[in-house]
Amino acid sequence: MQDVQTLVARYMDTFNETDSDRRRELLDALYTPDCTYTDPHVDLRGAAQIDGFIEQTQERFPGVAFTLASAIDAHHEQARFQWHAGTPDAPDAFVGFDVIVTDDGRIRSVYGFTDAGPAA
Amino acid sequence: MQDVQTLVARYMDTFNETDSDRRRELLDALYTPDCTYTDPHVDLRGAAQIDGFIEQTQERFPGVAFTLASAIDAHHEQARFQWHAGTPDAPDAFVGFDVIVTDDGRIRSVYGFTDAGPAA
Repeated sequence: MQDVQTLVARYMDTFNETDSDRRRELLDALYTPDCTYTDPHVDLRGAAQIDGFIEQTQERFPGVAFTLASAIDAHHEQARFQWHAGTPDAPDAFVGFDVIVTDDGRIRSVYGFTDAGPAA
Repeated sequence: MQDVQTLVARYMDTFNETDSDRRRELLDALYTPDCTYTDPHVDLRGAAQIDGFIEQTQERFPGVAFTLASAIDAHHEQARFQWHAGTPDAPDAFVGFDVIVTDDGRIRSVYGFTDAGPAA
């Protein structure tokens, strides 16, 4: 099982990885095959759908970067944390909050919410 | 499907119901058969285990009352909210935070965290 700090760091990395082959490798290693990712805007299942969502986000917001913005509060197979997303001129334009649920060191579910942002 | 506001209100009610028969009725109606409830202290499956946990909590903290302490932020099949627990002299002695995941109007999973409290 991966350490949850490492797991969340890799999770953030996937949103910032612009090499599509490398990103898909990261996603396949990070998530369980039956994983789900649900935030206010999307409801996804499986690494391929998550990959497509990240690609679309990067295309829609050129230069966007995602950074962890809180401590990671973890116990059992779950963790919560806040993150920022934005471009260099406004790195915290969007503030998100996720609970992730893990299964044997991989992410089984992401339950995402919006803390602050243009769409909030 | 039950409205999520109603669902969360009933969820809070179960923690305050001291009549064991009535509480079990509420729990059986509120949760799916394979439900899970995980907070920093317990990792439970099924209404019977949740029932036992609530009974122990009420015995350990006589007069404890649980109240919703935030808006309910809900989308898709998930919701997050904060709650207070305490006795009349300190009604917010404990501050908790939950994400609930629903399935056809019933609670499938509770992912709980501690925001503030003696054990935090």
